[in-house]
Formats: sequence, C-alpha cells, structure tokens
Amino acid sequence: MAVNRRELLIGGALAGLGLAGVSPGRAGEAPAEPERKQAVLKISSQEGAIPGKDLNEKLDKMEKWGIEGLEIGGAVGREKSLPEALKDRKIKVSAVCMGSLGGRLVSPDNAAREKAAEELKRHLTAAGEVGSTGCIYVPCFNGEQDRNDQEVRKLLAESETGKDLAKVIGYRNAEIRKIAVDMLGPIGEHALKCNTRVLLEPLNRGEAWFLRQVGDAAAIARDCKNMGVCVMGDFYHMGIEEPSNMGAFIAGGQWLHHVHLASRSRVMPGQDKEDEANYLSGFRGLKHIGYQDFCSFECGCRGNKDEGIPKAVAFLREMWEKATI
Amino acid sequence: MAVNRRELLIGGALAGLGLAGVSPGRAGEAPAEPERKQAVLKISSQEGAIPGKDLNEKLDKMEKWGIEGLEIGGAVGREKSLPEALKDRKIKVSAVCMGSLGGRLVSPDNAAREKAAEELKRHLTAAGEVGSTGCIYVPCFNGEQDRNDQEVRKLLAESETGKDLAKVIGYRNAEIRKIAVDMLGPIGEHALKCNTRVLLEPLNRGEAWFLRQVGDAAAIARDCKNMGVCVMGDFYHMGIEEPSNMGAFIAGGQWLHHVHLASRSRVMPGQDKEDEANYLSGFRGLKHIGYQDFCSFECGCRGNKDEGIPKAVAFLREMWEKATI
Repeated sequence: MAVNRRELLIGGALAGLGLAGVSPGRAGEAPAEPERKQAVLKISSQEGAIPGKDLNEKLDKMEKWGIEGLEIGGAVGREKSLPEALKDRKIKVSAVCMGSLGGRLVSPDNAAREKAAEELKRHLTAAGEVGSTGCIYVPCFNGEQDRNDQEVRKLLAESETGKDLAKVIGYRNAEIRKIAVDMLGPIGEHALKCNTRVLLEPLNRGEAWFLRQVGDAAAIARDCKNMGVCVMGDFYHMGIEEPSNMGAFIAGGQWLHHVHLASRSRVMPGQDKEDEANYLSGFRGLKHIGYQDFCSFECGCRGNKDEGIPKAVAFLREMWEKATI
Repeated sequence: MAVNRRELLIGGALAGLGLAGVSPGRAGEAPAEPERKQAVLKISSQEGAIPGKDLNEKLDKMEKWGIEGLEIGGAVGREKSLPEALKDRKIKVSAVCMGSLGGRLVSPDNAAREKAAEELKRHLTAAGEVGSTGCIYVPCFNGEQDRNDQEVRKLLAESETGKDLAKVIGYRNAEIRKIAVDMLGPIGEHALKCNTRVLLEPLNRGEAWFLRQVGDAAAIARDCKNMGVCVMGDFYHMGIEEPSNMGAFIAGGQWLHHVHLASRSRVMPGQDKEDEANYLSGFRGLKHIGYQDFCSFECGCRGNKDEGIPKAVAFLREMWEKATI
C-alpha cells in the first residue's frame, strides 16, 4: 500500500505537481548550535494602538511606558516627516504594516502582477527611508486571488456555460506559492538595496488560508534565496494556527524579523488567561534564535488604555525574564 | 491600511470563513519547561527497505544491524502471524504505514466518508493488535478530494455547461481541514481504545498540498481534542517543506509519535551531503521534546543495501550523539 505509493517517488521525487520551482538542494541548516547573539526584548506599538490626540502625544506616552518602536501603516508620504518627528526621541520605526495589495502580486494576470511589484517596491523604498526593519506583506487574503468554494458555487449556479469559470476559480494555493516565490525574489533584492525587507505575515485560516504558519512563511522566504524576503509572527494568529509558539519561532529562525503582540483574543498581552503559557513558549523560541528585532502591539485593549498598555509592558518583561531556554 | 483591515477583526475575530470549527481557547502550552523523559533513538525500518527472501531473513539482518522496529504496510490479516513471527525477537512493530484511503475520509460525499471511517477503524484495530504506535494516514493526496487546476481547466475546456463542474472542483483545503477534524475526533477515540493512534503524515507539496508541515499536522491533531490523533514527520518531505527540522519537531511536540528516515534525496541517511546538518537539527528537536518512539527507514539505498543500511545506522547514532540541546 504505502510501500507502493512511495516506490514511485524514490528516484524521480521532485517531478510532481507544484515542485517545478523547488530546488532539490536547500540551504543546509547550521551543523551545530550556531553562535547567536543574546536575544533582546524591544517593545513597539502600532501607531493606532496608543492613545493620544497626535503623534507627539502618543510618542510621549510610549517613552513614558518604555516602548521603543513605532509601527506605522505606511511610509509613503512620511519619508521626511516621520524621521523629523522622531529625531530627538529614543523611539525608532519598527515596521511598516502594509497589507496585501489586493493579492495582485500573485494574480493570474501578468500585468497586474508587475504593477503590484512596482507598488511594493515603492513601499519598500519608503520603508527603508524611515529605517523600518521591513514592510509587512500578506500575499493573498481569502477571496482575493484564492477564490473560495462558496463564491465558485454561486457562480456555477448562475452560469449557463463553464467558459467563464476559469476566471472565478482563480489561482490555486500551489500555484500561488510558485508565483509568490518567482515574484518576491527580485523584490527582495530591491528591499536589500533599501536596507529593509519584505516581511511575509502568516494569518489565521479565517483571513488567509494560503499562509497560516510561521514555518511555512519561512520556507517561502528560504526558497526566494535572498534575505530581502523574510517573515514575521503574530501571537494572535499563532494562537489559532500554531501548536507551539516556540516551535514556530525556531522555524522562523534567521528569517524572523518582526513580531506582533496580542492576547489570545487580540487584546493586550496578559489580558487573557492563556497568555502566560503562550508568551513563555514564544519567548523561549525568540531567545533560542537570538532575536534582535521588535515585538509590536497589534491589538485592542480591554478597559482603559492608559492603564492597560503599561500593564501589558510589565507582563511582557516578566514573561521575558521567566522564559528560560 | 493594515490598521483598518485589522480593526474589523478585533472583537468578532473568530467569525470568519473556515473558522466555524475553531475553538477560541486552545489547550495552553506548558507554562515552563515541562519535565520530560530523556529522548531515545530507536531505529526501525519499513519491511520493504530491508533485503532478504522472507520476513525471517529480514529480521535476522535487522537484529544484526541494531534495528529495533519493523514498520509494515498494513496490519489487517497479520494480526496473528506477525506477533508470532516476532515472539522470540527483540524487534517490535513500530508503525503501520497505511495511506490515504483514496482521500475518502474527507470526501464531499457523506456516505463515502462514513465508509472510510469504518475502514480506518478496522486498520486501527489491527494496528493495535500488532502493538503499533499508530497507523500512518494521509488525509488527501493531490488530485484526490483536492482537485488540481489543470484537471479543472481540462474539464472546463471539454464542458459545455458549468453544472458538472461543482463535482470536479472538489473540496477546498479549508473545508477539508474542517471535515478532517470532525471525522478524526471519534476515530481517535477508537484508536485510544485499541492502544494505538492515527498518525497524520505531512508530505511535500508535489504529493499533497493539503498537509505539508509537521506543525500544521499537530495543529489539526490538537483541534481533534484527543490524543488518539497524533502526527509523524518524514526527513525527506521535511527537507522540502520545513525551514528548520528542529522547529518542526518542537512544533510536533507531544503529538509526534513516529519519524521517517531518509536522506535529502530519499536514499539512506548520510548518503547526501546535506544530511549531517539536517539530522543534527532534527535530532536536537527530538531530544528537546523527549521523543520516545521509533525513527524508521522509508527510503531507497544508493549502492549495496547490506553495506548501506548498517552504515546509515552508524551515521544516525553518530548524529544523535552530536545533537546537543
């Protein structure tokens, strides 16, 4: 049974569907425990998560609370004003949280892909100018290039002919992966020139079936073959998709360059009862890989933010201390 | 941009597509480094990988080479003969390598699913009788329930009407996951009664897009909510899909109960140059989780088996020794 199915594979193993783009030799892992820097906990926040009437008021609060990084929604148009606003501050830009560009970088339409690539490069140029570690990018939300069955069924019911359906079925995940690797390689080279990175973000299956685990994102980054394509992890999505936060971050390894912080239900870390176990496990992973980048709030807050946020910072520092490897 | 897309989620976060079956609270991870047994390296082999004219001759060679486990293609029909053949031997049955049952357990057809469930239970009953740690199961090879685009396109070109296409589009991965969790829960309970387990096997994308990483399999096992559904990892597939073998096995954690051994190109471990790095990383992961089950050859051999297999055993023992955590 299984012996038969496998006998077919031995020998010509990489010829199967979707493996055309896979190199048979992958970059080997370090042969022994590599010498790594000691990991650091640098806390950041998305701009929108901090209370305050303007950026300066937010930055004042962040400094008071020991938050060292600012994550922004986009750097295009802020290339001058943002470094200016931060010039007498300890706070640095952590990351740019961009989005998916409508999934167009993995579109079946070549012209749409090329246009999206140019757009992503513009975001990366701006991200580099404000000193961001990377530009957070989601290849494909559910319902973008990766159409869902419900939609297909509705169109099937409405359609008299099958001819138009090729369009609505859209690209399948295996194809999207191949397109993503092909498109992201050169974009990663652009990112490196700008001193920044594309940061692939795995979400949970309710938002994006295509990319749901840190290890899967890291395998795509590895296959892009340049360090301008890297990954991030988000404690909220990881709570749904990852069986082990430690395992996930170790899988992210050298490709992991940003982390989103949230509780199990996406409020401040420490506000849900599972958070202690989840953060201890995740922080053990970060310590194992010698993580050097920011961990950034992307979450709401249960109750008053001026109380909840500093409490979350204290919770994180306590978990970091306790997370032994 | 990203701030907006995320604001939608905070609050009603689990209502999205495909998340209907997701419990908002997952089993928390151990709050600190849990007390774990010291891991052991117990080497096994698939029956077909060992040279010999009959089972007895194979078993003699295995004992001579220090191989302690025998992995078989199926236990049904061998419930009496196999324990009889092993009764004066040190060798135990490691695992039963079953296959996918044609993907029917995740079929859109309820009757087909129920029939497949009964079939899988029969395999598990037999696996328990021969003392196997589990029954290796692949939910869905490419082209089984999860049709590929090429097939759909061919049918589109041939079809005058869209009406039949619902059948060929088949079930999407997000739906397959939900069906798998629903179906496997009760089957896992049956497995526990038989003192064995379902072992989900992640393959590489050329064989099965649906399940490609150990951590993804472990998340499915976790969601099944009983330890009768567990996972395995295969060094060959992991070489293609996992960015870190250590990270993958830590993600497998308590759910990992079998391992397949092979070189990077699916011959004997040690026969490819990347094997040293890959095995050191993987064995560090197994040691970290206190792994107690078998590691079993599922591979060919470059050159003479009577020389190649004992050499692979020695390679594995050397890597195990060197893999420090």
